[in-house]
Amino acid sequence: MKIRFSKMHGLGNDFMVIDACSQTIALQPEQIRLLAHRQFGIGFDQLLLVERADAADVDFRYRIFNADGGEVEQCGNGARCFVRFVHEQGLTQKSQIVVQTASGIIQPRLEQNGLVTVNMGAPRFAPAEIPFVSDTQAGQYALTLTDATVMISTVSMGNPHAVQVVDDVDTAPVATQGPQIEAHPRFPQHVNAGFMQVVQPQHIRLRVFERGSGETLACGTGACAAVVAGIQLGQLTSPVTVSTRGGDLTIDWAGPGQPVMMTGPAVTVFEGEFDTALFSQTSPVR
Amino acid sequence: MKIRFSKMHGLGNDFMVIDACSQTIALQPEQIRLLAHRQFGIGFDQLLLVERADAADVDFRYRIFNADGGEVEQCGNGARCFVRFVHEQGLTQKSQIVVQTASGIIQPRLEQNGLVTVNMGAPRFAPAEIPFVSDTQAGQYALTLTDATVMISTVSMGNPHAVQVVDDVDTAPVATQGPQIEAHPRFPQHVNAGFMQVVQPQHIRLRVFERGSGETLACGTGACAAVVAGIQLGQLTSPVTVSTRGGDLTIDWAGPGQPVMMTGPAVTVFEGEFDTALFSQTSPVR
Repeated sequence: MKIRFSKMHGLGNDFMVIDACSQTIALQPEQIRLLAHRQFGIGFDQLLLVERADAADVDFRYRIFNADGGEVEQCGNGARCFVRFVHEQGLTQKSQIVVQTASGIIQPRLEQNGLVTVNMGAPRFAPAEIPFVSDTQAGQYALTLTDATVMISTVSMGNPHAVQVVDDVDTAPVATQGPQIEAHPRFPQHVNAGFMQVVQPQHIRLRVFERGSGETLACGTGACAAVVAGIQLGQLTSPVTVSTRGGDLTIDWAGPGQPVMMTGPAVTVFEGEFDTALFSQTSPVR
Repeated sequence: MKIRFSKMHGLGNDFMVIDACSQTIALQPEQIRLLAHRQFGIGFDQLLLVERADAADVDFRYRIFNADGGEVEQCGNGARCFVRFVHEQGLTQKSQIVVQTASGIIQPRLEQNGLVTVNMGAPRFAPAEIPFVSDTQAGQYALTLTDATVMISTVSMGNPHAVQVVDDVDTAPVATQGPQIEAHPRFPQHVNAGFMQVVQPQHIRLRVFERGSGETLACGTGACAAVVAGIQLGQLTSPVTVSTRGGDLTIDWAGPGQPVMMTGPAVTVFEGEFDTALFSQTSPVR
């Protein structure tokens, strides 16, 4: 059976996007791993499935799978691609759509200029909601690493983030501290480790060591978490431009209890079609 | 303008293949680099262009570009994909076709079982033809590296190869010796460095550190060069099965002056279409 797909990226975070409303598709984790392979498959960071929603007041269900085949809750760059995709494929005409994800309802909006704004939900700070092991809730926490103690802010954007302020992201110890923070025992479900340089109150530079992926070109929820942390610390003023290695995002947040709005680009690189028969076997060599 | 393409692989060596007979396409090196990008582009090891031939007795012209945009002479895995492609696209009905490449004429053949046999041409051994700096021609040469001297056989398969016999490819120092051999001053145009383990006279295991690419899953011309070298050394008997990390090839060679015949698989992973407008700009972020 032939399956149509689009290959897209948001700031270099790349996606295979499949319309599972008009096509019937059931993929096992092993098949997703093979589809994700850059040589033997299509190649992607995440697979996005666009499905019909269960509820009448919801437009779509949006499911996200990592390259290892595991389903994940949330992906900001993916959400922007998702919105461009449903418009390009004619699945909706609405500029604002209501989407059911594994971490709740999101309501992204296609802007006149082609950028996409995603309501990323309200950040949560309670240690148990991160989850983060701490007896008290604070603006910053001292986290002990192998050869340093770093001051981090913890934020949940549907997924857990630990953000620290650094003088210069280019020289920040992302490769050495990133894995230590990601797997630190105080984060029982691991964490995304952000390194933020405050250029101006409305401009930061950011690198993120992502949970399960290592450093990526850009992390959408990481940008939200960093701006929220910076505003809470009194170092940033909304809206904030976040410069990542993959490009720029704009993050707008009105304060505690309010949702974080993320605006940025999404690009369709090409459209394609694969035969499911090729991905029904277990060996990558056929 | 929309351009159709196929994404293919031969033993994990992956290709974007474009029919430039029925489509008009002119790509600058910068555009090829962007198309080769795994996130911002289609992603491939090499781009293969199928063009109409200049001469009446030649079926096609076959051009090969590396991911860095540079045109190269020869690629054995690519030649197999090329043959599958021209059949799948209906560009020819012939099972044996005559193809003009930058390093001469090749005559690949589609077998009944779907494998493809490529006549890789006769190997050349004269040092000047490799090119390799040596006053005399010999079966093996001692090559001085930083902390070892290794015995290599030099073979040109349209591109230069230096092959050494090792006890075990799994523990062979490919990562450390590969770059030293590749850029050794006695190879003025650099060289592909092969590490061959003789399992039986008709079975070898092979790893190749490719010129300009590093270690790859499988190198077609490297498999030819290794078998030729092994036969010349009296350690192998044709035909020889070559096990690479990407899968198996069969190499058949009747001896000096005769062409090397390589048989192996080629797989179409998916078909796609991209818009040239997306790849007309210089920035990878759009």
